[in-house]
Amino acid sequence: MNFSFINWVEYIGTFAFAISGVRMAAQQRFDWFGAYVVGFITAVGGGTIRDLLLDIPPFWMNNGSYLLCTAVAFACVIIFKKQLERVSKTIFIFDTIGLCLFVVVGIEKTLALECYPFWLAIIMGSITGAAGGILRDVLLNIEPLIFRKEIYASACVIGGIVYWLCTIAGFNTTITQTLTAACIFITRFVAVKYRIGLPIMKE
Amino acid sequence: MNFSFINWVEYIGTFAFAISGVRMAAQQRFDWFGAYVVGFITAVGGGTIRDLLLDIPPFWMNNGSYLLCTAVAFACVIIFKKQLERVSKTIFIFDTIGLCLFVVVGIEKTLALECYPFWLAIIMGSITGAAGGILRDVLLNIEPLIFRKEIYASACVIGGIVYWLCTIAGFNTTITQTLTAACIFITRFVAVKYRIGLPIMKE
Amino acid sequence: MNFSFINWVEYIGTFAFAISGVRMAAQQRFDWFGAYVVGFITAVGGGTIRDLLLDIPPFWMNNGSYLLCTAVAFACVIIFKKQLERVSKTIFIFDTIGLCLFVVVGIEKTLALECYPFWLAIIMGSITGAAGGILRDVLLNIEPLIFRKEIYASACVIGGIVYWLCTIAGFNTTITQTLTAACIFITRFVAVKYRIGLPIMKE
Repeated sequence: MNFSFINWVEYIGTFAFAISGVRMAAQQRFDWFGAYVVGFITAVGGGTIRDLLLDIPPFWMNNGSYLLCTAVAFACVIIFKKQLERVSKTIFIFDTIGLCLFVVVGIEKTLALECYPFWLAIIMGSITGAAGGILRDVLLNIEPLIFRKEIYASACVIGGIVYWLCTIAGFNTTITQTLTAACIFITRFVAVKYRIGLPIMKE
Repeated sequence: MNFSFINWVEYIGTFAFAISGVRMAAQQRFDWFGAYVVGFITAVGGGTIRDLLLDIPPFWMNNGSYLLCTAVAFACVIIFKKQLERVSKTIFIFDTIGLCLFVVVGIEKTLALECYPFWLAIIMGSITGAAGGILRDVLLNIEPLIFRKEIYASACVIGGIVYWLCTIAGFNTTITQTLTAACIFITRFVAVKYRIGLPIMKE
Repeated sequence: MNFSFINWVEYIGTFAFAISGVRMAAQQRFDWFGAYVVGFITAVGGGTIRDLLLDIPPFWMNNGSYLLCTAVAFACVIIFKKQLERVSKTIFIFDTIGLCLFVVVGIEKTLALECYPFWLAIIMGSITGAAGGILRDVLLNIEPLIFRKEIYASACVIGGIVYWLCTIAGFNTTITQTLTAACIFITRFVAVKYRIGLPIMKE
């Protein structure tokens, strides 16, 4: 993967995450500004928590693209709200692609600091992918979805373990990234298609 | 504005924000300690998130005045609870003055670091003014008010844009601060008086 | 107290906090992964917020023991769920021991930086002890318990004041730690046993 390709996929992920934030805010009848803010926090929240924990400057603070990306997502929800329902499968695929890339980015940013163990990189990858959705649900005052439905955060962890195994096996970066992303994508896709979930806790 | 004048207005803002936190905690029947904590987080939460994102020490950690300010606000709610309802317009004005000042402080702290673009300063100003109220609502387990009612966070953004235009126009600091604060004050005052709100998202 | 003794007690505290997080997640019917995450955040959340505010690396990021501790707690809830109800008093004692130690650790980490006033160390001790439970309740979308029930966060503050008085009195570290911990333990134990609570705010 060359730099610009990653960038493109990352913007697609940001766009898809922002769409999900804006739409869920619309379901709660937030106003326009609130919906934009929730969309933005959904898109960049995971990476921001990661960067705060790693003590590096939050990635979006010197790059206005993420604000613009959210603005485009917001405009799309306003203008194409009917059509969006018909293309929800496409959005699901965007969202999952975004998830894959976010996890890979989170792992690599952590490893690049060269002062943390691998298991932390896996956690940081999962936070990058999943924490934005948790913040969204907290702001909307609903129970975080990812803790109850679908394989979502757990797909991130599986992806992280694949990344680790690939590194041990000595694969090069491109193959490692591709295998990790593919594994997250397939895990989530299969889980949603066949309604596979983790066991529910019993009281 | 000289230093001590800003300080005074900032304490008034902290006081007003703390009053709103303590009163809303009282409505949820929190205990005294919980109400104090919610008041404090409402008052300093926005600035704390700003400082964490900018990676500078949270402003209240070396200055006990904010704890004291919250204590005074707490005592006022306990002692004058009946009278407070009658002066709610005065509190609204305090709260709005606090908002104006918090936004100006947030913008200037960000610009002082000299490593961030202007749009980030506008976001940081808005976070300083509005994020404390969001934290309050999350702790009280209610939907963040500012996303649904009143022009509030959006007034911060408008103020930030005014600050930016004043800087481009080359106005001096005092004029820039005054115009920004005035603009936020008038926007919010007019919005509340004439019940003007942003459009609500439709599902 | 020598190093390994503190470590042991800290793991017991982590274990007890994780148990409470996992059990409350089970009551909300979270899935296994979600329950593990809530358990982990309950256990390390307070210390993480403290470390972010103090701008030091979060304590668990270079030490996998806390993940393991949570895993053991998680397994215990799954395997021994019936027995756990019978030993809930034992868990209450673990939890309170954990609270005592977390407060002492939080105070000492802050004082060790030598750039903050004593009242901040008391606040950081209380955040270390109580903020994990607040994060747990926010994620479970319930009102933070500690603001309404039991003497909990306020016991941390009392403990912090005892630590401060001991320091003024010139007691050595061991005595100071023991008195602080004992005071928190007794305050909470008595409050729970005799159902003593702080006054509730009236609207």
